[in-house]
Amino acid sequence: MTRFQVITVGRDVQAAERAEAEDFRRAMSERGTLVVNVLSSPGSGKTSLLAATVDQFPASLRCGVLVGDIATDRDARRLASHVPVVQLTTGGACHLEFPLIAAGWRALGEPSLDFLFLENIGNLVCPASHDLGEHLRILLLSTTEGDDKPAKYPKAFRTSHAMVISKIDLLPHVPFDVERAIADARTVREDLRAFPVSVRPPQGLDRWCAYLLEQRERLLNGALCRPNR
Amino acid sequence: MTRFQVITVGRDVQAAERAEAEDFRRAMSERGTLVVNVLSSPGSGKTSLLAATVDQFPASLRCGVLVGDIATDRDARRLASHVPVVQLTTGGACHLEFPLIAAGWRALGEPSLDFLFLENIGNLVCPASHDLGEHLRILLLSTTEGDDKPAKYPKAFRTSHAMVISKIDLLPHVPFDVERAIADARTVREDLRAFPVSVRPPQGLDRWCAYLLEQRERLLNGALCRPNR
Repeated sequence: MTRFQVITVGRDVQAAERAEAEDFRRAMSERGTLVVNVLSSPGSGKTSLLAATVDQFPASLRCGVLVGDIATDRDARRLASHVPVVQLTTGGACHLEFPLIAAGWRALGEPSLDFLFLENIGNLVCPASHDLGEHLRILLLSTTEGDDKPAKYPKAFRTSHAMVISKIDLLPHVPFDVERAIADARTVREDLRAFPVSVRPPQGLDRWCAYLLEQRERLLNGALCRPNR
Repeated sequence: MTRFQVITVGRDVQAAERAEAEDFRRAMSERGTLVVNVLSSPGSGKTSLLAATVDQFPASLRCGVLVGDIATDRDARRLASHVPVVQLTTGGACHLEFPLIAAGWRALGEPSLDFLFLENIGNLVCPASHDLGEHLRILLLSTTEGDDKPAKYPKAFRTSHAMVISKIDLLPHVPFDVERAIADARTVREDLRAFPVSVRPPQGLDRWCAYLLEQRERLLNGALCRPNR
């Protein structure tokens, strides 16, 4: 069996992309737009949460969504009755990268927004390694996925500021202990905020939306720290 | 902003690995061991399904499991009371690759088995691109993930022989239409077999296990086709 030689090239291939993401973040800070990158497994409820969040927000707030999928525009069509949205389709790739965000932002018309949400590809692994120029990284963990997931997917939890525990309406039917999940996640990131939430029926959305509004206030006051990776 | 030149290298970097996987599949065919690669999102129930499957099998059948995770040995500890198991830990990587299977197989002691199950990393994207030397690729879709997922993750569905629809005990509580999910999956792969299943309480496991036994009979009779990717 042929074995190829291992060649190691030392250049950081993501450096240029990270610098562009950093420029984008700075520009959005100056515009007062909080950029929120939302990560989760497939089917944890990212699209439903975003629709419920913008519906819950005061009507005066201006929001936009760039939604990523490997194929189809199903999520964008679901969101389009709630918020201006652009579908980003990766054609196979398992995560969003910054150039697609930049293209999506142009396609959205570069509007003046209070919140720009980036709904990532459903994948708890690879998206954690890519800076999309966001201020805030949010991870959804559905109660149906099991409370043992945080330590099994450490990078996604370690690089997120807050965890939304979604589908708490199903708690009576699934073996999921909210406190255990939070404790497990905090072994990975001690200061992780946690928001147990259900969209149908609505539960916990007030507290979740208050958190987002508070983070935007901090952005406007220059008190939002750089992402800590 | 510096832009690096795009350099395209034409060599198929997976060719050597695929050839090794092919050799492994042939060797396992000769031993009469059916190798089953199990894919799904995090928390769809791969570990629970495998434990229930080996419990349901006739006691005379010899099974083994190689279980992949990014971090922790939680899944192996869950399985160890049901079946001989080796935990494969990728240390960050989002999918299993063949060299880790070969190492796990050696760590298991290369026993004579009727079934060798490979529980992949919880990820519906990247694992679809890697041949682990399996005869059969199985995809789990949980009823809590939504019936709109197949066309959104086409490669995982297109390269799988059968789909297990897991957690059907939750159907009264979630907006999931089994027939719609199957129809959607069959737009991607027309001949995909479908097995609606619940582990707690047990539902549909008889039919699922009969399918596996039938596939092993086909292997012994030389009637199992090569994976069709």
